Amino acid sequence: MPIVQVNMMAGRTNQQKEAMIRKVTDAVMDAVGAPEQNVTVLINEIPKTEFGIGGVSAQTLGR
Amino acid sequence: MPIVQVNMMAGRTNQQKEAMIRKVTDAVMDAVGAPEQNVTVLINEIPKTEFGIGGVSAQTLGR
Amino acid sequence: MPIVQVNMMAGRTNQQKEAMIRKVTDAVMDAVGAPEQNVTVLINEIPKTEFGIGGVSAQTLGR
Amino acid sequence: MPIVQVNMMAGRTNQQKEAMIRKVTDAVMDAVGAPEQNVTVLINEIPKTEFGIGGVSAQTLGR
Amino acid sequence: MPIVQVNMMAGRTNQQKEAMIRKVTDAVMDAVGAPEQNVTVLINEIPKTEFGIGGVSAQTLGR
Amino acid sequence: MPIVQVNMMAGRTNQQKEAMIRKVTDAVMDAVGAPEQNVTVLINEIPKTEFGIGGVSAQTLGR
Repeated sequence: MPIVQVNMMAGRTNQQKEAMIRKVTDAVMDAVGAPEQNVTVLINEIPKTEFGIGGVSAQTLGR
Repeated sequence: MPIVQVNMMAGRTNQQKEAMIRKVTDAVMDAVGAPEQNVTVLINEIPKTEFGIGGVSAQTLGR
Repeated sequence: MPIVQVNMMAGRTNQQKEAMIRKVTDAVMDAVGAPEQNVTVLINEIPKTEFGIGGVSAQTLGR
Repeated sequence: MPIVQVNMMAGRTNQQKEAMIRKVTDAVMDAVGAPEQNVTVLINEIPKTEFGIGGVSAQTLGR
Repeated sequence: MPIVQVNMMAGRTNQQKEAMIRKVTDAVMDAVGAPEQNVTVLINEIPKTEFGIGGVSAQTLGR
Repeated sequence: MPIVQVNMMAGRTNQQKEAMIRKVTDAVMDAVGAPEQNVTVLINEIPKTEFGIGGVSAQTLGR
């Protein structure tokens, strides 16, 4: 029953999110033999104003 | 001081969210005797494009 | 598919944890009509040295 | 490599978020000597309808 | 800078955890083109007494 | 009511954890004017075998 939370900067396409779900699920199945139906992946998109790296927001860093 | 994070698919009404807060708080109070004022419930609504089940997004699954 | 993370101070019995899982699952089912089998509850027990309230650890506060 | 998730009620300005990132990063550096570049701060803004205190949403409480 | 939190039942070997870190990092790199050095994977092992499925702990379910 | 979760590698002393709680609470108070009593800090210590950086565990990296 692995539950994976992916925290990443906002701005990806739905295709990229679908690919993230697919590939992370496969990775978990491979690594610990979890059945596909038991793997949940939750994507948490974080706006650049709320994503801090080294004390500065990604927005201000121009990421 | 229990802090409960409820991750669920987006699309519920404010009444349902209010009921979730009320009922989960009561459940925590019952289970471990926490004082009502000490229980915090945080709801995290996740868009269907970002909620993966068995390798596919809830959006694509038509959930 | 609601996934509930319960963060609470360490020190509860397995009976209390079992009751927490049961009662929180019932609360979620009641509030949004989720099927029982779809509700996951993850308990995160936090040592008192790592649980800060108002700037001081629960340990130092004598909780 | 400390990763700090700040969960707070929605409604702050970008200046306040930038200050949160700066000050929390400095606090972590001070407390455990982590290098600035290794500290990540993720802000999670929670709408008042989804932030429950003592069994009632912050919205209903008029917070 | 994707940060991935993998919540799973306790009991895996260090080899399985190392494989989880490797494969999940590769999956994230593939899906959104993140540089390898920017991907962080945090594994959260949850004891079976604290992992609830359908209202019952994994321990009681004999998982 | 800010709730701060600090994820960091295991191995710090209780003094460092107490300092983390104190300094992060002060930082949050400064940044958004939250009352001291309303700030909760939860420290999540992660073993080096479960903390992945760039596809390899901190343990294997010799961190």
